Amino acid sequence: MTKKVGKQTLKMENKPRIISTFSIVGPKEGKGPLKDYFDVIKNDDLAGKDSYEKAESNILYTAVTESIKKANLKEDDIDFLFAGDLLNQLTSSSFAARDMNIPFLGLYGACSTMTESLSIASMVMDGDFANYIIAATSSHFSSAERQFRFPLEFGSQRPPTAQWTVTGSGAMVLGREGNFPYVTYVTIGKVKDYGIIDANNMGAAMAPAAVSTLYNHFKDTGRSPKDYDVIATGDLGKVGKEITAKLLKDYGYDISHNYIDCGEEIFDNETQGTDSGGSGCGCSAVVLCGYLYKNMLSGKFKRILVVSTGALMSTTSSLQGESIPGIAHAVAIEYGTGGS
Amino acid sequence: MTKKVGKQTLKMENKPRIISTFSIVGPKEGKGPLKDYFDVIKNDDLAGKDSYEKAESNILYTAVTESIKKANLKEDDIDFLFAGDLLNQLTSSSFAARDMNIPFLGLYGACSTMTESLSIASMVMDGDFANYIIAATSSHFSSAERQFRFPLEFGSQRPPTAQWTVTGSGAMVLGREGNFPYVTYVTIGKVKDYGIIDANNMGAAMAPAAVSTLYNHFKDTGRSPKDYDVIATGDLGKVGKEITAKLLKDYGYDISHNYIDCGEEIFDNETQGTDSGGSGCGCSAVVLCGYLYKNMLSGKFKRILVVSTGALMSTTSSLQGESIPGIAHAVAIEYGTGGS
Repeated sequence: MTKKVGKQTLKMENKPRIISTFSIVGPKEGKGPLKDYFDVIKNDDLAGKDSYEKAESNILYTAVTESIKKANLKEDDIDFLFAGDLLNQLTSSSFAARDMNIPFLGLYGACSTMTESLSIASMVMDGDFANYIIAATSSHFSSAERQFRFPLEFGSQRPPTAQWTVTGSGAMVLGREGNFPYVTYVTIGKVKDYGIIDANNMGAAMAPAAVSTLYNHFKDTGRSPKDYDVIATGDLGKVGKEITAKLLKDYGYDISHNYIDCGEEIFDNETQGTDSGGSGCGCSAVVLCGYLYKNMLSGKFKRILVVSTGALMSTTSSLQGESIPGIAHAVAIEYGTGGS
Repeated sequence: MTKKVGKQTLKMENKPRIISTFSIVGPKEGKGPLKDYFDVIKNDDLAGKDSYEKAESNILYTAVTESIKKANLKEDDIDFLFAGDLLNQLTSSSFAARDMNIPFLGLYGACSTMTESLSIASMVMDGDFANYIIAATSSHFSSAERQFRFPLEFGSQRPPTAQWTVTGSGAMVLGREGNFPYVTYVTIGKVKDYGIIDANNMGAAMAPAAVSTLYNHFKDTGRSPKDYDVIATGDLGKVGKEITAKLLKDYGYDISHNYIDCGEEIFDNETQGTDSGGSGCGCSAVVLCGYLYKNMLSGKFKRILVVSTGALMSTTSSLQGESIPGIAHAVAIEYGTGGS
């Protein structure tokens, strides 16, 4: 007997607890609608470093070490760090891990990395391999722009479907016990590619993966969208969100009444010039570690489903004419429901 | 109670079985000393594709799908694919996963990816989350050279400490039952950086990580080097292997009598012009899936310890003056020992 439910979903028997979270964002995110939910807002998006890559690694390091302090733990108490980011060879995560004394496992799921790391961490915790695990990720507008698109100095124009990579990092400490929000189900996604080739329209590229994972989550668990107070996709933005809701309705699930997208929530697109919304691993990470987690603690949300979404292309694959594959992993989190 | 033993090691209670493996290599590896152990040797390192990146993704796809066939399973039987590679944003793995109907989790540990994927797959399997999981990785000489160093057409000279990225892919299918080699212990590594900055001397950069993981494995498990028929590091090459054996002796563990390095075994450095030896994720993958696994099945090796090693730099981190952090994860595999 396995803990698998249906085709892609895993049921947690020991319900890994999320005992603390920490979120840290850049100046622009700190002026957005969710600003009151972040633990730290940096005034300077270089974070006092001499490159954007070093700044990104630094905010990830800060998120991880501060999440440990918030849990009243020491670095030595943490069994594993599961982390990843958007930079080539995950240098934000690897260089942050270099300065910690914690066994490290690097993950890459593009902007799906927050729920990828939380999914694997939950399984490893539920399988009795650890007392404390950290799941974390980061992204940075400026390091992502120059790696994936153009140097900022180039001043290229952005189409309205473009998204704005979030500068931010979120970390969560998982533990085995205590009265905290806990993970009940994890749905691992498959790679989906519907032929989108425009790297400025990633919401559309990722939407089919979000739809597939959401559909299978509902089918596997027998739950309906109404069982959740919030269903939050990662960073589909305005365009991808609309596609997702529409496609899912065609498959028989109406999520319209409680559906948000972290990328749409984090900025005020009208006044902040962020076009279709936020993106990047850090987007769903800080929205989950900040807005969603804190509203669970306060009792506003009792059961949420978070579905971070990733676009798995590289500049090389795009230059070679490949379309953009997407992936999405879903994690159900509950608190104060009296058990699931 | 967790399954953790000591500081960094996990003990498998259900002993995940490695029920099949598949290895596929390029023409140069197919002329090396281990050629008889590989399942497929490609004549053409483009594998019939129009780019090296597409070729690499293709051999990973082949390794995964053929490992499923060898296990007498169908794609639909596989619960998860854990895979990663060296290319930016893991495009070999992601694009291979796009053509499969299997939930996918991408990992990055540079050349440590084979034991990283096998470690996580083992924990997830031991935690009862799956019936069948595939752990896989790949690398390709030509895609790695142009991404990390110089375009091949540039014809740059190689120093004697340089290693030769293996063109190859290895995949293993893990199952819950049957008379097959099985995983007993996993030791997850920490990131170690001793200040090496030369991307042509990666063996030296990775050696401290290998030493740390080996040392902690022996300490955590109470085993000594002599408990293993073979201890195989991933791709330290000639230079890194010597450093590792020496450092470990200083720490009280003499591994000299049964220590091999996959990077040293795969090529005949004298006649094949491979300088310090092979490297790349594919190196320890094909040596494990080919030479080591097949010698376990035949009864030659009863207990092995595999320690894939990764160098976690990027071209950007090197350009910004950063040194090269290393990481290593160890997996103990047994067969025919009558239980551990």
